[in-house]
Amino acid sequence: MRVFIAGIDGYLGFPLALHLRARGHEVAGADLLLRRDWVKEVGGQSALPIASYADRLRAWQDRFGDALDFRIGDLTDYDFVRDFLAEFQPEAVVHLGQMPSAPYSMMDQAHCVWTQRNNVVNNLNLLWAIKEVAPDAHLVKLGTMGEYGTPGLDIPEGFFEVEFRGRKDRLPFPRQAGSWYHQSKVHDSHNTQFAAKIWGIRATDIMQGVVFGAQLPEMDADPRLRTRLDFDQCFGTAINRFCCQAVIGHPLTLFGLGRQKRGFLPLIDSVTCLRLALENPPAPGEYRVFNQFENAYTIEELAQLVQSVADEIGLRAQIKRYDNPRTEQEDHYYQPDREHLLKLGYVPTRDMRAVLRAMLLDLIAHRERIERHADALIPDIRWDGGRRRSEVIA
Amino acid sequence: MRVFIAGIDGYLGFPLALHLRARGHEVAGADLLLRRDWVKEVGGQSALPIASYADRLRAWQDRFGDALDFRIGDLTDYDFVRDFLAEFQPEAVVHLGQMPSAPYSMMDQAHCVWTQRNNVVNNLNLLWAIKEVAPDAHLVKLGTMGEYGTPGLDIPEGFFEVEFRGRKDRLPFPRQAGSWYHQSKVHDSHNTQFAAKIWGIRATDIMQGVVFGAQLPEMDADPRLRTRLDFDQCFGTAINRFCCQAVIGHPLTLFGLGRQKRGFLPLIDSVTCLRLALENPPAPGEYRVFNQFENAYTIEELAQLVQSVADEIGLRAQIKRYDNPRTEQEDHYYQPDREHLLKLGYVPTRDMRAVLRAMLLDLIAHRERIERHADALIPDIRWDGGRRRSEVIA
Repeated sequence: MRVFIAGIDGYLGFPLALHLRARGHEVAGADLLLRRDWVKEVGGQSALPIASYADRLRAWQDRFGDALDFRIGDLTDYDFVRDFLAEFQPEAVVHLGQMPSAPYSMMDQAHCVWTQRNNVVNNLNLLWAIKEVAPDAHLVKLGTMGEYGTPGLDIPEGFFEVEFRGRKDRLPFPRQAGSWYHQSKVHDSHNTQFAAKIWGIRATDIMQGVVFGAQLPEMDADPRLRTRLDFDQCFGTAINRFCCQAVIGHPLTLFGLGRQKRGFLPLIDSVTCLRLALENPPAPGEYRVFNQFENAYTIEELAQLVQSVADEIGLRAQIKRYDNPRTEQEDHYYQPDREHLLKLGYVPTRDMRAVLRAMLLDLIAHRERIERHADALIPDIRWDGGRRRSEVIA
Repeated sequence: MRVFIAGIDGYLGFPLALHLRARGHEVAGADLLLRRDWVKEVGGQSALPIASYADRLRAWQDRFGDALDFRIGDLTDYDFVRDFLAEFQPEAVVHLGQMPSAPYSMMDQAHCVWTQRNNVVNNLNLLWAIKEVAPDAHLVKLGTMGEYGTPGLDIPEGFFEVEFRGRKDRLPFPRQAGSWYHQSKVHDSHNTQFAAKIWGIRATDIMQGVVFGAQLPEMDADPRLRTRLDFDQCFGTAINRFCCQAVIGHPLTLFGLGRQKRGFLPLIDSVTCLRLALENPPAPGEYRVFNQFENAYTIEELAQLVQSVADEIGLRAQIKRYDNPRTEQEDHYYQPDREHLLKLGYVPTRDMRAVLRAMLLDLIAHRERIERHADALIPDIRWDGGRRRSEVIA
């Protein structure tokens, strides 16, 4: 299958490209390399060293014997997007090319507006380009479980049958996202569903949990093929940040009560699920929603799990509560469905301890990279619009 | 009350400014005068002659004895928005400054992206400016009944109590909008609700029906104070278009079955409702939704009503069905609530025939302005992305 990956240089994009190519799919992609800049902007760096764009291309050539068609370009530039798709004629388009951080989008007016403009416009451009030059292509669009927020009900996969004043209908499940970034993904979901309806586009909207780790068999042969692992307040998600903290002896940072519950999944599950979605496309005009995560955990459970695994390999990690920079429920109902991908053959990675152990051992070798940027571990971007470094509260 | 009107030169903006000023409120506003350009771009013109920006200011001075603080500026320019609000210190902000046409947004990729970028960014800018320089100001944001689409359930005002798998919660009512423009308003509603939650902004989100007519007592004294009335395929909404068609002897154009049902309200009801919302602000942090319309009618009922009133004043109007350029349900359930504004004292204009008669008599004097642009009466912008002039089907 010919798969176009928007955001092919990113945390998920490059591993997905490798995973698909190793299984015989043909891959091309675009990226503006912005993630590399954003992480620098917020004072972080990838804990694991990553190759330059050029070195990734050389390693790809060495590994597979052919060149990767990877172009640097801006997805908000419609001519670039349309011309690339017209030339490559993809059977599927995976959209990973967005600004993916809640805190980054909450920093100030400029970051909020930039995030929504970038994400909404580049998703619209992909929809238009598919319609105009590759109308049979299947769009696999990355959304986030965060689109749903934390309602007091079970969270279905995108739609629910509801009764109201004696009448019944199947409606989109309401979205209550918790950051300007998450809101941008809600906007994209609405736009994508509408494009499927009016143009007959095939679309899978992935409500993905929080991905963690950087382990993938396809990356083992050559360090130039590895993906990034961030730990800063913007791009370092919970488990990745906890593991980096454990490695340098920094307390694991819970925000508030730490009972916020979210879906999580290891990197290998993410690329496997995306491949399953690609290999089982929907019908023309069908817009389907997959909730994609291994399981739901509270942040506290995850910190305790990291603490326990770290302990086994001789790392002593404390857990501390910090005042929560976010406006969010800290103790809430959370029961999301996750059936669609299981039906397509997704077998969740159940051995979380093994994944965490591999991650920690990997990170120990790069401890000084984390120590050098340890300041970036503590959040100061607050949901009230201010900047104030969180303090330990318990 | 000091009221800032974003979009003060528009179809609703200028009448609202007059209505508020005549009742003793202090008004300022901004506009980029784009509506005047868009209507030209699509081959239309206002059926009623309207004064230039400069003449409107002179007429305001003559009528009220003071100058209107009306600045030409782009609401997507954050510095302009913030500095104006900082200086004026509004107690309320009414956001009417958006691209309001479904067909215009459906024309092509460029118009789609422009619409969403403009509308989403300028609404975010107003939210940020309120937060930063006028945090107690009440935002009255114009949404549209079209955000809801046509679900098979009653449409509540923004939120509904729902039971799902034995649990209950109050959730936002799902939005299923039917054009890129309507989608942009859905995005704005999500963003506005989020801003109210995290920053404590007071917000009223008006889900407005289709406004018609151009009669308002405050405009009678001076023709330079009149508002526009468009009839082209983009900016001419159903009743306005029917009346213009009746006046020049063109068939009234139903799309498809003509049983599409929508909420409608005359101009005077729109400005009255907006004033009621302003004079009864929500608490800090409260996000409330008002469904704003006089009543719900099918397009066919409205065409027959226009036909009947036209007949009384000697105009013979035929009704014809055209193939529908839109992707929409043509015969559907539609039962929206409209209680919140009634509780604040809204008394709907019940005499539709009188409103239509005044409109028709007004338009007869400007028949040649409509005849000159009669080509713009028939749609060719299609929801499938193509351009093809609709033909008579019955």
